[in-house]
Amino acid sequence: MWLHTRFDLAFDITVPTPFVLMLRPRSGGQQWIAREEYRLTPNVPVFEFTDDYGNLCQRLVAPAGAFAIHTAAEIRTADHLDREPGAPFIEIQYLPDGVLIYLLPSRYCEADRFGVMATELVTGLTPGYDQVAAIEAWLRASIQYLPGSSEVPLSAVEVNARQYGVCRDLAHLGIALCRAISIPARMVVGYLADLEPMDLHAWFEAYVGGRWYTFDPTQAELRGGYVAIGYGRDAADVAVYTQFAPPVFPIQQMVEVHLDPRQD
Amino acid sequence: MWLHTRFDLAFDITVPTPFVLMLRPRSGGQQWIAREEYRLTPNVPVFEFTDDYGNLCQRLVAPAGAFAIHTAAEIRTADHLDREPGAPFIEIQYLPDGVLIYLLPSRYCEADRFGVMATELVTGLTPGYDQVAAIEAWLRASIQYLPGSSEVPLSAVEVNARQYGVCRDLAHLGIALCRAISIPARMVVGYLADLEPMDLHAWFEAYVGGRWYTFDPTQAELRGGYVAIGYGRDAADVAVYTQFAPPVFPIQQMVEVHLDPRQD
Amino acid sequence: MWLHTRFDLAFDITVPTPFVLMLRPRSGGQQWIAREEYRLTPNVPVFEFTDDYGNLCQRLVAPAGAFAIHTAAEIRTADHLDREPGAPFIEIQYLPDGVLIYLLPSRYCEADRFGVMATELVTGLTPGYDQVAAIEAWLRASIQYLPGSSEVPLSAVEVNARQYGVCRDLAHLGIALCRAISIPARMVVGYLADLEPMDLHAWFEAYVGGRWYTFDPTQAELRGGYVAIGYGRDAADVAVYTQFAPPVFPIQQMVEVHLDPRQD
Amino acid sequence: MWLHTRFDLAFDITVPTPFVLMLRPRSGGQQWIAREEYRLTPNVPVFEFTDDYGNLCQRLVAPAGAFAIHTAAEIRTADHLDREPGAPFIEIQYLPDGVLIYLLPSRYCEADRFGVMATELVTGLTPGYDQVAAIEAWLRASIQYLPGSSEVPLSAVEVNARQYGVCRDLAHLGIALCRAISIPARMVVGYLADLEPMDLHAWFEAYVGGRWYTFDPTQAELRGGYVAIGYGRDAADVAVYTQFAPPVFPIQQMVEVHLDPRQD
Repeated sequence: MWLHTRFDLAFDITVPTPFVLMLRPRSGGQQWIAREEYRLTPNVPVFEFTDDYGNLCQRLVAPAGAFAIHTAAEIRTADHLDREPGAPFIEIQYLPDGVLIYLLPSRYCEADRFGVMATELVTGLTPGYDQVAAIEAWLRASIQYLPGSSEVPLSAVEVNARQYGVCRDLAHLGIALCRAISIPARMVVGYLADLEPMDLHAWFEAYVGGRWYTFDPTQAELRGGYVAIGYGRDAADVAVYTQFAPPVFPIQQMVEVHLDPRQD
Repeated sequence: MWLHTRFDLAFDITVPTPFVLMLRPRSGGQQWIAREEYRLTPNVPVFEFTDDYGNLCQRLVAPAGAFAIHTAAEIRTADHLDREPGAPFIEIQYLPDGVLIYLLPSRYCEADRFGVMATELVTGLTPGYDQVAAIEAWLRASIQYLPGSSEVPLSAVEVNARQYGVCRDLAHLGIALCRAISIPARMVVGYLADLEPMDLHAWFEAYVGGRWYTFDPTQAELRGGYVAIGYGRDAADVAVYTQFAPPVFPIQQMVEVHLDPRQD
Repeated sequence: MWLHTRFDLAFDITVPTPFVLMLRPRSGGQQWIAREEYRLTPNVPVFEFTDDYGNLCQRLVAPAGAFAIHTAAEIRTADHLDREPGAPFIEIQYLPDGVLIYLLPSRYCEADRFGVMATELVTGLTPGYDQVAAIEAWLRASIQYLPGSSEVPLSAVEVNARQYGVCRDLAHLGIALCRAISIPARMVVGYLADLEPMDLHAWFEAYVGGRWYTFDPTQAELRGGYVAIGYGRDAADVAVYTQFAPPVFPIQQMVEVHLDPRQD
Repeated sequence: MWLHTRFDLAFDITVPTPFVLMLRPRSGGQQWIAREEYRLTPNVPVFEFTDDYGNLCQRLVAPAGAFAIHTAAEIRTADHLDREPGAPFIEIQYLPDGVLIYLLPSRYCEADRFGVMATELVTGLTPGYDQVAAIEAWLRASIQYLPGSSEVPLSAVEVNARQYGVCRDLAHLGIALCRAISIPARMVVGYLADLEPMDLHAWFEAYVGGRWYTFDPTQAELRGGYVAIGYGRDAADVAVYTQFAPPVFPIQQMVEVHLDPRQD
């Protein structure tokens, strides 16, 4: 399917403020960026680099005054997500080198604290995809998805204690549970068509059967329409903007995702 | 200044043909991609990766039949190129690790064959920027810039023997001469406003005074309006398309660069 | 100075167990590995790779039975660590791309929770080296260094609550405090001559004045004799061994560091 | 099998001379470095980095006067090299991203000039391993292996014209022929047990059937005993030392490889 995405962000800056933005989606097998806009007002110099996860990041210093970011894209993405019940667990020694990092605990995914719980959740299941699907199903049933319920990211331990959270928080718990049973898992931030209420979205991927598969505990069932903007170990790595002191807050933030009726 | 670029390419494919394209310019301190289009007809799956030089490359298999690529962009680029007469030669031991590769000979830049000639060309000059400027001036005066004169890339040895060549060929000789005196040099492929005749363009950069500077022996004088698409050791690394056997040839290729009168 | 290091580790393995080891120190400007031994008994196949932080990591599967690792090295390292009171804070926009990751919170360094505390600790000081030195001094005075007091890594929040910890724990708090005031900081694991009691050691580095400087809150004063084995965001990244389920524990672990009287 | 290798190199330096050395073999699935020595006389500061091919490189400035490098290692390497007649050609679109670079022409491997010749050499063979084996057999039969016959590397075009060369030269021609039929190929520099006369050695690897296989046109048949020091596109990338002007020449160079009778 074809999607038109739009993300606008505006700040009222008091002192020149360094930013690292992550707002340029990459083309890949899952999605093709056919048109993209990325405009800054005022037009400040930007340096772009590729981070350790392959994300394109933009560095700039926002000057004092009004500062606005406008991005829009026209993207072809999959109508249906791949699922593969039965896809096997990959023994650690056969994982690609670059995937090993996604087994480690990270800021918001304290995988080292979830060994017992994760093992119980997947008892009796075929190691691999089915275990992750069980974790996803458990999250869907047990942790309430409550958009707007947290301003700052909650860690897996925190969201497990609180039993509710935003998409990002649920993803953290899902990731921590996967890693606790030695399944590599990573966070994805991006867009989802027909998300209610519309906003940026977050979900997770798990590496089983020799590739990454998408999981999303916030949705009743997996459907197409996902657009990835950034990948990382958890929310610390994939903030769409990271800003350095003193703190500034968006005075406007707007996300739109429209379906383009055209057939490829 | 703001530029609108367009590059169209069309093939008539007989058997499914793997391609690696390098047609997505990166944003950086020198240029900002405010809008970009990249369309394929028909719409085939594309996998994008970042190569060792930081270029975004697109992998695909073109199916039999008509295959067309359309790219366009709206780009802010520098009005004037930085020049820095007197910028010093950087001793090898102080070069960044990643720059060392640009001292080695490469397919079309046989730096190992130009030690004597390069040394003569720069006799008496302050090591660094002034040496590269002298090499550029010598190329401008001695090697005829003849657009359309070669179909395949000429190496530095070949273009030095022939005494004429296309932009790419002159860049090869410039790069080989710089490396021969231990100045890192690399090739750039991209667009240049008001190029006559309009086409893709190639030039080179040399690393002196702690950064890369642009040099272009094909132009009477350095002006702004450059847009980089790809960086590499020489033309082997920065082909805008690399295609694997059997050979196919473009049935159409069109480049446009328009100046946008807007003042930033 | 010249040091002879030795690290021995033995396990009694019940089922074949995948390991990732980080036991091969890298040569660098700070240390030169003149001789190195790395022996496994039994001799199993090992695949070595370089992780995102530049560490050499060894992957293997330990077979059931006795499994022993022996490493030893002869290393030249600095007699005195560089200190640079007054070295300035580097504005975010001037940090190298690869350093930015060391500003983010990580598993054991919840930098996002220490803004107020860190700001208070460094009030009135010149931004940069002096702030880090003040954090180090505060740790030395306020958090008890208690070798053997924790089996698993404590996070910065935990060690700050508990007010004591092992070297690794103190480093976590130091790193979190630095990052909270936008100074990049990273963890180092390695050896230290004359450490009491002798063991592996951990300390931290902060990026000020355009380079990394060493800080160690466990020692009364900074002296030479440090050998780095691994660098990372925190203890999650620089475990000398990471082992995948079911858990196995070393039946023997021995560290030796001897001073070689030779004068270079 | 276990090998003891030794490589000594001595220079008489007149002015301080920057060097990049590549003399530290990496451990991998094919070889395990159980003991290693790397000594410089005098002891100058060395900075080590990992290049784009994964090689460990050492940067230093040799001072005026006698300068000596001594390396030695104890290495376990394969008794027999893997061969896999019939291993299939991997279609370009299925090659890993990082392998694509080994399809491009390079300084000493002008793959773009060998399309017709390579196609003729492999006519009628199953694409893949068998084609590379045919190229290796042709080199063995047609290009004379003449140790000591060239001081500087010969390119594939040059060695094909001359019909003889050192190990490095034969490898260049083998690599160019493989790439000309879209089989990725790369150069390896290292040691070979029982080489006559003993010296550093060079051979090539080709990527077929989903992995790299070793080929060596200088030996009557493939046997074990190979130790890789460096990988690259061709000799330009894998010089064991690269030195920057003015030229210095080794006054002593010595290679030893001894078989250790121990059974693993």
